[in-house]
Amino acid sequence: MASIFTKIVNGEIPCYKVAETDDFLAFLDVNPNSKGHTLCIPKKEVDKIFDLDETDFNGLMSFSRKVAKAIEKTISCKRVGLTVIGLEVPHAHVHLIPLNSMEDARFIQKVKLTPDEFQDIANSIKAAL
Amino acid sequence: MASIFTKIVNGEIPCYKVAETDDFLAFLDVNPNSKGHTLCIPKKEVDKIFDLDETDFNGLMSFSRKVAKAIEKTISCKRVGLTVIGLEVPHAHVHLIPLNSMEDARFIQKVKLTPDEFQDIANSIKAAL
Repeated sequence: MASIFTKIVNGEIPCYKVAETDDFLAFLDVNPNSKGHTLCIPKKEVDKIFDLDETDFNGLMSFSRKVAKAIEKTISCKRVGLTVIGLEVPHAHVHLIPLNSMEDARFIQKVKLTPDEFQDIANSIKAAL
Repeated sequence: MASIFTKIVNGEIPCYKVAETDDFLAFLDVNPNSKGHTLCIPKKEVDKIFDLDETDFNGLMSFSRKVAKAIEKTISCKRVGLTVIGLEVPHAHVHLIPLNSMEDARFIQKVKLTPDEFQDIANSIKAAL
């Protein structure tokens, strides 16, 4: 069965899109640790990130770096953190998380945003790319 | 003042070394989230990882991917996670963390190991590279 992220890639599930190339997609995490928390994924469905070959892995990381720099310009934070866990959705994804404290990196505290707030954040990051 | 990681690069502070190239160094985190928790750093002292230029950033990520694959072969875990936070030591570093549950990714639970255990783990990962 297609992963939830493949359904997002295929447009079967909507997302707050931040950036897209032929191979990669970035969109807001809808259960964010902090405002601006973004997911970067390869369109190709691969479970474990280190199973991507070196070219695809580096492509995803370069893409994530560009998105992270746009988040840094847009969202007030000390820095943007990068995390790959992957115990829940079996489709490799890079979390980019605006950090003001360690708590923002722990996946325990979550922030609630309205659809309008999500859309405004996605638009701002996109404009900074 | 040189960062603690620059002192490790220069051999002023010892480490349990896992891998080294001209540009990058991997060594065990001495306050690990889980057994096998490893840090990968650029020898060049740069605070924020996204301030590395694209070549150096991708170099660090390729190096980290190789080390992660050696950790996966060596340490019993569901997968190896990758995390960059950087709120404590102002020298970019990639955490590679063997994950069995989300708790291993939160930087709250820590494991205690003896010097012999650290050395055995470093030797095993090195041998799997």
